[in-house]
Amino acid sequence: MNIHSKFETEMQVRPDDIDLFQHVHSSRYMDYVLAARYDQMARCYGMSWETFIQRGLGWYLTAITMNFLRPLGLGERFMVRTWIEEFLPDGDGVRVRFEIEKQATGKRCLNGHAEYKLINLATSRAIPIPEDIKSKYSI
Amino acid sequence: MNIHSKFETEMQVRPDDIDLFQHVHSSRYMDYVLAARYDQMARCYGMSWETFIQRGLGWYLTAITMNFLRPLGLGERFMVRTWIEEFLPDGDGVRVRFEIEKQATGKRCLNGHAEYKLINLATSRAIPIPEDIKSKYSI
Amino acid sequence: MNIHSKFETEMQVRPDDIDLFQHVHSSRYMDYVLAARYDQMARCYGMSWETFIQRGLGWYLTAITMNFLRPLGLGERFMVRTWIEEFLPDGDGVRVRFEIEKQATGKRCLNGHAEYKLINLATSRAIPIPEDIKSKYSI
Amino acid sequence: MNIHSKFETEMQVRPDDIDLFQHVHSSRYMDYVLAARYDQMARCYGMSWETFIQRGLGWYLTAITMNFLRPLGLGERFMVRTWIEEFLPDGDGVRVRFEIEKQATGKRCLNGHAEYKLINLATSRAIPIPEDIKSKYSI
Repeated sequence: MNIHSKFETEMQVRPDDIDLFQHVHSSRYMDYVLAARYDQMARCYGMSWETFIQRGLGWYLTAITMNFLRPLGLGERFMVRTWIEEFLPDGDGVRVRFEIEKQATGKRCLNGHAEYKLINLATSRAIPIPEDIKSKYSI
Repeated sequence: MNIHSKFETEMQVRPDDIDLFQHVHSSRYMDYVLAARYDQMARCYGMSWETFIQRGLGWYLTAITMNFLRPLGLGERFMVRTWIEEFLPDGDGVRVRFEIEKQATGKRCLNGHAEYKLINLATSRAIPIPEDIKSKYSI
Repeated sequence: MNIHSKFETEMQVRPDDIDLFQHVHSSRYMDYVLAARYDQMARCYGMSWETFIQRGLGWYLTAITMNFLRPLGLGERFMVRTWIEEFLPDGDGVRVRFEIEKQATGKRCLNGHAEYKLINLATSRAIPIPEDIKSKYSI
Repeated sequence: MNIHSKFETEMQVRPDDIDLFQHVHSSRYMDYVLAARYDQMARCYGMSWETFIQRGLGWYLTAITMNFLRPLGLGERFMVRTWIEEFLPDGDGVRVRFEIEKQATGKRCLNGHAEYKLINLATSRAIPIPEDIKSKYSI
C-alpha cells in the first residue's frame, strides 16, 4: 500500500541521448529520473531546488537501483512517475520509487528506487529533515 | 533578406545539462540546436529523420559556429529558432542559422550557423540533394 | 569468496562530467563503469566489443545498483575495478560487481553491481552464453 | 606564422560519447577540446583552473567554430592539440586554435578555433588579463 502521492513529468528523448544501439543510453534514464524529481520538487512538493539551496540544503543521491525493461528510441515521448516510498529510519532521507512509461504504448521501460539524504551544503553532512520539509514531502 | 521560414522548438534545461558554474555546459547548447533540427525535420519540413534513414540518407554536420551571449540556468525554458540560410553552392548541403532565446525574458542566449551535407549512408559520401527533398526544404 | 579475476581501468574526470555541485554528476559514474567494462572486454577477457558485434552479439544491461560513497571532483584520476560475481542461473547473463577508487587517496567513491544479458542483436533476445565466451569470462 | 607553443593531450573515446551513427556525437568533440584546455592550463601553462578560481577568475567561452573532417569511433585514441593564436585586441581574452588527430592513423578529425574571455567570477564581467597571467600564456 502506497500512502504517498505519485507525480508525473512528461519528457522527450533528445538525439544526444541515443547510443550506438539506437536506443537511449542507459545512464540517461537516470538523468530523466533526476530531471523529473527536480521538476516535481517545485511543481508538486511546493519547494523548489533553488529554495533548498537558499536554505543551505540539498538532496544528495546516496544509492540508486534501476531495472531496464524496454528501450526508448529517438524522439519518443515518455512519462516519468516518482513517489516517496518511505522516510528513511535515520530521519535524514527518503526512499523514492520511480518508473518510466512510453507514451505511445503505455508500456513500462524502467523501474527502480533511489535514496536521497538531506545535506547541509556548508558541512556536506546529512541532517534530520526539518518538520516543514517533512510535511511538504508527506503528501 | 531571409527567404526561408524560421521554425521554433521550445525546450527546458535538464539538471544534467548544468556545469560547475551553475550554467548550461557550453556543448549542450549544441545538443539543443541538434534536437530542434531533429524536431523540425518531421514537424516543420515534413520529412522525419527516420524517413531519411529509410531512404539511406542522413544529414551530416560538417561545421558549426556558436556565439555564447548569455547563459541559461537550471530548469529554464528556452526557444530554439532555426532556419535555412542557403543551399550550399555544391548542391549537397545547407547552411542553417539558429538562435536560442530565454522564454522568461525573450533575451538572446546563443546564435550561430551550421553546415550540413546530405550523406548516402551506404557510402558515407555527400550526394546532391534530391529535388523532392530540396523542395521540402525550400519553404 | 570471489573466484573471478578483478580488473582495473584508470580514468580521469572530464570537465563535462562535473555538475552544479562541483562534483561528478551522478549518472556519469555509471558511464565510467560502462567504459571500464568496454576496455576490459578487449584487454582483459580477450574478446572485444567489436568482436561480439561481428558475431551478432551484444551485452545488454538489465539492472544496476550504485552506492555513492564519496564524490569525485574536476580532473581527479580514479580506478574502476570490475569483476564477475557469478553467471546468472538462466545461463544467459552475468552479474558484475564494481567499485571506483580515487587514485590520490585510495578511498572508495562508489560500489555496486550490474546484470548483463547476452543478446542476439538480430532478434534482441537473450541467448545462452556460448561455451567459448563463458570460458573467456571464467578467468 | 604561429608564435605560441602548441600543446597536446591524449584522450580516448568513451562508450557514452558514441551516437546513433556509431561515431562520436558531434558535441562531444567540443568536450574533448575543453578537457584538453583544462589539462593544459595546469600542465603546460602552469596555472591550473583551480588557481584561477581561487583568484576569483575563470575563462568563459564566448565563441567556437568547429570543422568536422573525419569521425572518431568507439574506443579510439586521439590527440587534442591546442595553442593560442592571439590575444584579443580588447586585452580581455584569447583566441585559441585546436585540432584533433586520430592516434592510429595521424589523420585529422576536427579543427577550429575558440574565443575565451577572462571573467571576474564575482561580477561575471570580462576583465583585462593581468600581466602575470598574460606572461604565462605568452609561451
